[in-house]
Amino acid sequence: MQFSQSAMAGAETPKLAGLELRHDSILNKWVIISPARGKCPSDFKSTVNTSNQSASPCPFCLHHEHECAPKIFRIPENVSEWKLRDKKSLPSCVNGEQRIKPHIDSCADTLPRFGSHDVIIETPDHAMTLAIMLDLNIFDVLCAYRTRIQQLASNPHIKYIQVFKNHGETTRASMKHSHSQIIALPIVPSNVVTQLNNAKEYFTRTMNCNLYEYLRSEIQSKNLSLEESSHFISFVPFAASFPFETWIAPKDHASCYEQIEDEQAMDLAYILRRVLQKLNHQLGNPPYNYMIHSSPLRESYEPSYCHWFIQIMPQLTHLGGFEIASGCYINPIFLENITTILRGVNLQNQ
Amino acid sequence: MQFSQSAMAGAETPKLAGLELRHDSILNKWVIISPARGKCPSDFKSTVNTSNQSASPCPFCLHHEHECAPKIFRIPENVSEWKLRDKKSLPSCVNGEQRIKPHIDSCADTLPRFGSHDVIIETPDHAMTLAIMLDLNIFDVLCAYRTRIQQLASNPHIKYIQVFKNHGETTRASMKHSHSQIIALPIVPSNVVTQLNNAKEYFTRTMNCNLYEYLRSEIQSKNLSLEESSHFISFVPFAASFPFETWIAPKDHASCYEQIEDEQAMDLAYILRRVLQKLNHQLGNPPYNYMIHSSPLRESYEPSYCHWFIQIMPQLTHLGGFEIASGCYINPIFLENITTILRGVNLQNQ
Repeated sequence: MQFSQSAMAGAETPKLAGLELRHDSILNKWVIISPARGKCPSDFKSTVNTSNQSASPCPFCLHHEHECAPKIFRIPENVSEWKLRDKKSLPSCVNGEQRIKPHIDSCADTLPRFGSHDVIIETPDHAMTLAIMLDLNIFDVLCAYRTRIQQLASNPHIKYIQVFKNHGETTRASMKHSHSQIIALPIVPSNVVTQLNNAKEYFTRTMNCNLYEYLRSEIQSKNLSLEESSHFISFVPFAASFPFETWIAPKDHASCYEQIEDEQAMDLAYILRRVLQKLNHQLGNPPYNYMIHSSPLRESYEPSYCHWFIQIMPQLTHLGGFEIASGCYINPIFLENITTILRGVNLQNQ
Repeated sequence: MQFSQSAMAGAETPKLAGLELRHDSILNKWVIISPARGKCPSDFKSTVNTSNQSASPCPFCLHHEHECAPKIFRIPENVSEWKLRDKKSLPSCVNGEQRIKPHIDSCADTLPRFGSHDVIIETPDHAMTLAIMLDLNIFDVLCAYRTRIQQLASNPHIKYIQVFKNHGETTRASMKHSHSQIIALPIVPSNVVTQLNNAKEYFTRTMNCNLYEYLRSEIQSKNLSLEESSHFISFVPFAASFPFETWIAPKDHASCYEQIEDEQAMDLAYILRRVLQKLNHQLGNPPYNYMIHSSPLRESYEPSYCHWFIQIMPQLTHLGGFEIASGCYINPIFLENITTILRGVNLQNQ
């Protein structure tokens, strides 16, 4: 018996006493699918409900700007009633936003050769979250990512930019006020190298981009999408690492997030909001992470096999020693059921 | 300015406003060292104290064996008052021990072609932990790993065996009773491939094993060890991913854990117990993971550049989207101070 080496190749994968070992050739890692006995996918709920946020103001709130590091830009500019801010993180904060402290903004250097760490404050309202935000405000967030990536990419030392969001208490987000983060690095991280080497190998062999090919031949042709809009498609990947993990990818091949056009960003805002809402409805407002996987800058990777996407991971389980050491993940849900469940969530025609 | 590409090469690494980007060439990943402002390494304490375990019996306790999947072996064999048991995990439990349920042992298949998942119950006593165990009992645990790896390695489908321990609530260990786990896989996981490709490249270039060379030229010659015994050395690695992460490695080159001899295992029991005790004393009995990084089986890796070691990671911080996406870790402590702190912990000559 052979284990599937080809990405996302559902039909070839063996099933053994309810277990499967799947290879995710997009991220180039192995996943053990091990369904929890006696537990349906619909039984999975978050033990933490992130919607009940305290209303007490924090340094990210409107009129508390002086408690933060200086802004890089805000939307709208030069108006005190801002909708969104991008601020430098303090040098002491590159370990996540946990250490952000008011009144130390004299330390807000850009660290141009190290890279940088930005915090995008998505809203002035402490209780607002992306899932309940207007699409137009999510559009602003997505455009802020684009603007800031373009600014950072002009620095010749920067080789990789990671946009990510840690939402909720267990995902390292000690600041509850809704925000995203951008870390720019002078190196290409090992996971990205591993991922792109695989994409390159696939492209060399087939002259196709592996994610584009997967979208076309599996998700679209077999009607496995969760949501589909003019420019984007969301789906549960074949070898998801986490229960209810969902990806959103451009339907046409595109290697760099920062080349997104306004119309596409508006479309993405709609689909991102709907996916987050569905996950919230189904799982009880779980903590989650999302990350934008985009092409490295000025490295020897060709745009033809880099296809950017957003990976959204509700945090329903913890990582243990096995996952950290091996890079293999264990997912307790058979993924084929998740699409059906999430499709069935009624958002009342929003 | 160049960032250090060579593993563990402290002297070459730039320091920028208190930040460093370090490359760990043993595990082949990048780490951002970003000291938390106003926080000394000695301020780090666990928010969870794992020593206050409930005394209520569980399926891993003495005389509750019927609530578990069948044993594979026990020490001593055929004696009801066992000291240690190795049991099969249920197929539904390959996602960690969370799903272990009593009274379903009819499902305890070995899944020979998938691999297997064992749970080593380290003690019959619910309140006992490795850190307070007698060295002779830890020796039994270490020998159980060896025995089981040797058994599993005889299966020609198995290519990699991961021994690991999740201790405490936040590390995915929902069974509090002290235990380790062994997962045998028919593939070599991506992290291990990444790690060994780097070791191979270093060996090709220098004819040296990179970890052995690091132990000799950095840890031993610069007196940076935390503990040293006849056969083993413990130390805080140059590019640790987690605060207070500690490694234990054989002082002589050795590629496979399962070739450990009794005398060496007794020596390792002593040093492992002391490291765990020091971490407990300093950090307040934190949850932790440890993992044995050993050579893959029957793959094209040469023993000359595979050097096995144990990676011990107290869980004082959470992983976020950045770490999961990039494989880069952010460590809020400068590591050079940790060795001094841990050396200073007084174990009252134990």
